Amino acid sequence: MSLRSYFPILDWGRRYDRQTLTSDLVAALIVTIMLIPQSLAYALLAGLPPEVGLYASILPLVAYAIFGTSTALAVGPVAVVSLMTASAVGRIAAEGSVGYGAAAIMLAALSGLMLVAMGLFRLGFVANFLSHPVISGFITASGLIIATSQVGGLLGIRTEGHAMPELVGSILANIGAINWHTVAVGVVALGLLLWIRLDLKTWLKRFGVPKGPATLIVRAGPVLVIALTMAWSVVMDLGAKGVAVVGAVPQGLPMLAVPQLDFGIIEQLALPALIISIVGFVESISVAQTLAAKRRERIDPDQELVGLGAANLAAAVGGGYPVTGGFARSVVNFDAGAATPAAGAFTAIGIAGATLLLTPVLAVLPKATLSATIILAVLTLVDFSILKRAWAYSRADFAAVAITLVGTLLLGVEVGISLGVGASILVFLYRSSRPHAAVVGLVPGTEHYRNVKRHTVVTDPAILSIRVDESLYFANARFLEDLVINQVAANPGLSDVVLLCSAVNAIDLSALESLEAIAQRLDDLGVRLHLSEVKGPVMDRLERSDFLRHLTGSVHLSHHQAMLSIAERRRADAALLAAT
Amino acid sequence: MSLRSYFPILDWGRRYDRQTLTSDLVAALIVTIMLIPQSLAYALLAGLPPEVGLYASILPLVAYAIFGTSTALAVGPVAVVSLMTASAVGRIAAEGSVGYGAAAIMLAALSGLMLVAMGLFRLGFVANFLSHPVISGFITASGLIIATSQVGGLLGIRTEGHAMPELVGSILANIGAINWHTVAVGVVALGLLLWIRLDLKTWLKRFGVPKGPATLIVRAGPVLVIALTMAWSVVMDLGAKGVAVVGAVPQGLPMLAVPQLDFGIIEQLALPALIISIVGFVESISVAQTLAAKRRERIDPDQELVGLGAANLAAAVGGGYPVTGGFARSVVNFDAGAATPAAGAFTAIGIAGATLLLTPVLAVLPKATLSATIILAVLTLVDFSILKRAWAYSRADFAAVAITLVGTLLLGVEVGISLGVGASILVFLYRSSRPHAAVVGLVPGTEHYRNVKRHTVVTDPAILSIRVDESLYFANARFLEDLVINQVAANPGLSDVVLLCSAVNAIDLSALESLEAIAQRLDDLGVRLHLSEVKGPVMDRLERSDFLRHLTGSVHLSHHQAMLSIAERRRADAALLAAT
Repeated sequence: MSLRSYFPILDWGRRYDRQTLTSDLVAALIVTIMLIPQSLAYALLAGLPPEVGLYASILPLVAYAIFGTSTALAVGPVAVVSLMTASAVGRIAAEGSVGYGAAAIMLAALSGLMLVAMGLFRLGFVANFLSHPVISGFITASGLIIATSQVGGLLGIRTEGHAMPELVGSILANIGAINWHTVAVGVVALGLLLWIRLDLKTWLKRFGVPKGPATLIVRAGPVLVIALTMAWSVVMDLGAKGVAVVGAVPQGLPMLAVPQLDFGIIEQLALPALIISIVGFVESISVAQTLAAKRRERIDPDQELVGLGAANLAAAVGGGYPVTGGFARSVVNFDAGAATPAAGAFTAIGIAGATLLLTPVLAVLPKATLSATIILAVLTLVDFSILKRAWAYSRADFAAVAITLVGTLLLGVEVGISLGVGASILVFLYRSSRPHAAVVGLVPGTEHYRNVKRHTVVTDPAILSIRVDESLYFANARFLEDLVINQVAANPGLSDVVLLCSAVNAIDLSALESLEAIAQRLDDLGVRLHLSEVKGPVMDRLERSDFLRHLTGSVHLSHHQAMLSIAERRRADAALLAAT
Repeated sequence: MSLRSYFPILDWGRRYDRQTLTSDLVAALIVTIMLIPQSLAYALLAGLPPEVGLYASILPLVAYAIFGTSTALAVGPVAVVSLMTASAVGRIAAEGSVGYGAAAIMLAALSGLMLVAMGLFRLGFVANFLSHPVISGFITASGLIIATSQVGGLLGIRTEGHAMPELVGSILANIGAINWHTVAVGVVALGLLLWIRLDLKTWLKRFGVPKGPATLIVRAGPVLVIALTMAWSVVMDLGAKGVAVVGAVPQGLPMLAVPQLDFGIIEQLALPALIISIVGFVESISVAQTLAAKRRERIDPDQELVGLGAANLAAAVGGGYPVTGGFARSVVNFDAGAATPAAGAFTAIGIAGATLLLTPVLAVLPKATLSATIILAVLTLVDFSILKRAWAYSRADFAAVAITLVGTLLLGVEVGISLGVGASILVFLYRSSRPHAAVVGLVPGTEHYRNVKRHTVVTDPAILSIRVDESLYFANARFLEDLVINQVAANPGLSDVVLLCSAVNAIDLSALESLEAIAQRLDDLGVRLHLSEVKGPVMDRLERSDFLRHLTGSVHLSHHQAMLSIAERRRADAALLAAT
């Protein structure tokens, strides 16, 4: 590992030129415009003051530009991680309290440390245990929860909780307190955002606006909606009419600070931080890899862990909260032509400028505008098609999606995703503990052996060939013993049993003991046990034990050779018997 | 399922005759003599009054005789389960208190219910997850803990705790309080027991005692030692000299009672009850199966769960504590000729008689005698050879044994065994998440394909054959993608890639999506993707998805056929190109 692999900036920095700079600056401008409303809104979703979202979009982007390997990934606050932050922090501090913000900072610090550690120790494979069905179910459920949580913001009523039952319950309980001024702002904002997303581009085209500026105007749409509703708020004095507005905001850029250590809080946040780290990493790496593949670039997953970890540590130092690579934002960054991670650093400068500009005036912004922004952003996350696909393909995958989805909706993000991961691992263990096995015979005209139940094959009544379709390990060792003994009992007149091991990828000590027991019991019955097509790594291991010395039969390179050599021996035995 | 499979007694009961009766009675007599001192001692180990051990050896044996399937298994208190009981119950009540006994009864009731439920729902496979290395490490560690816990009894000092650090600490702390009268009784008892086990038989033989009576006398040895030390206690008035004696014991047989429900206690005991159930079942079923194999009998594991569950429910009703099949005792029962489970019922009658006879006189029995009995019994459990075997065979298996052993010694039985099970599952998941894969070529003169690195094989530079040695599932889906793409990048000039799927026993939805991504990326590079030797169950599933329709290559029955058909197509393409 060279220094360059830990600091990718040393690599692309040397090749940086004017053309790359121009591309990066254009992309940074567009992403900045998109990121401003999202930062404000996601901070609200996380239960934090809106300026925290802006803070989380400055230093983390610079850190990722130094340590990250993706040229297109746009780091910052994202919806799902904001919901997870609210859920984790909400358990240890009341929203709006000083402790709440401090806990969010600590969560970012812990998540950053964990991600960096996972990167340095090359533990990125842990993320593979979040299977695609589980993550799909989780994201869809999170999208639904987030959208529901913002309904209160649109109606001007308070909601509570980070799972469906509590959220829906609190909406119903407070439904009488609807503030119609808020509803007006919210519905107008939602309608405008929807119209901007769906129709504005066609509309501008019709008026002859060229494609480049048209795209920029569409991307700036949410900022325009914010400006519009702020003006509305001032003109109509909405704050005095009971419309929730952002209120006084500390001016200027955040002070840098090292998070305060409180081991009680660290203990409570450790598990949520781990889950947030893994979910954030999985979300981020899949966007990064999809975009990299389009440009034939390579992403180094372990270095990505370091990059995201550095971003979260920067978020902690810079007064933010947990961040990761966002899907929609990265696609925009990519489309806008971002050529290096420097685009992210330029975005950071843009957000820093906006922070200086915005903090003095944010006070009048109706929160309903931010709720509308969130609802529109997360509805793209909701995708039930995975349920249909999984159902068609396998009940086990469907169960994993369904458990994650229902678990997350009903019990919240941490429990939901843990249930999903647990269920998918249990399903895998259960399946491998009761493996498929087939008695096989020769496909005529070939040297290939297949299941007697599925193919027309030739078998020898004195030789039983069994193919076990699984690695042999503790969970299925007893299964194997029962299988072989039952098959032998059902086939009297056997002289040899051959285990075709082409699908046996490992044999652990428990399974080795089972094989020894099988060999012993077959020997008692006068039947020889052979193995065929044992793979190199498995054979290496068997040679370290006594097993091969006690084996009554042999180990054959191919199953066909096993059958030929056993038949040959039986012919020789029969000839010898006839001669005497 | 017929009634007979749930009540095996209906089966063997019909064939019961005088000869079977005689065999069963002889075996019952010998087991009774052996069980009396063990019952008393193991109850002490469990922290319970000695008579509870006798109670646990009456009704449970009758229940097992009705529901069990093993003709040789001798059910009752055993060392490891007694230690686990002490550990579980000790956490919620003080030893000697009324609550302690009630909690032990509740533990037996919970364990009984769990075992019966596992049997009825055919969940016996759960026990497979206690791998042999884990159970070996656990039993050895338990043996060491039990022996250490009884050192206090031999020295006449109080000890505390159910794990090594606390036990050794409390022995050292109280070492000054040694009672030398107790040491005398303990050392004599230990010496006598050892002598009886090692030399008495040879000695009796020399004096011309026939083998049958000699065996009986040896088996009766521990009872004789109890009688001897009781006499010593009375004559020397040891109780007055500070020697711990059993003390007043309620006379007669236990009152039958339904355990009292206390949900707080049930909640605390649920997990220990589950662990005790599984450990007890694994211990019991392995003895039962070993002995059954010698007589070519069959054990039904699911019905065994019901049998052991009934025994534990009976223990709860009859004032006992958790029981299971004991190893040494069952071997004795088998050797003595027990022909049906009725031998257990006769043993129960014997213990009931002994209870009536003993309870009035037990008060004077020095506890040191029982400690000596326990130490001698558990030292046979300690076996470090598994460490050596596991080390030689595989580091992963060694890690599982070592973690279980050290974890149990240092942190106690429940944590130790949970760590062991967790470690062995994690190792399995880790290995299957980074599977072995090989580029394969044709073994000349055959139709068999093997690893190019291990065998002399023939390959075609235009066709890459990769064999993946693992089921494809979420944890290794990304690994597969990287592997194929990297291999293709390293081999320019490829026209076809064939995945040899002989070792792929399942493809889940995540892996299917990876395969789709691989096919797509190969297609971009103008390379076709083929599969060969896809197993029936895997093919069934692939046919439910779109994958096969999008596949640029084909699925071939055997790898050899794949190679022939691809070469054929390439020749035809070349001829066509030459002709134009």
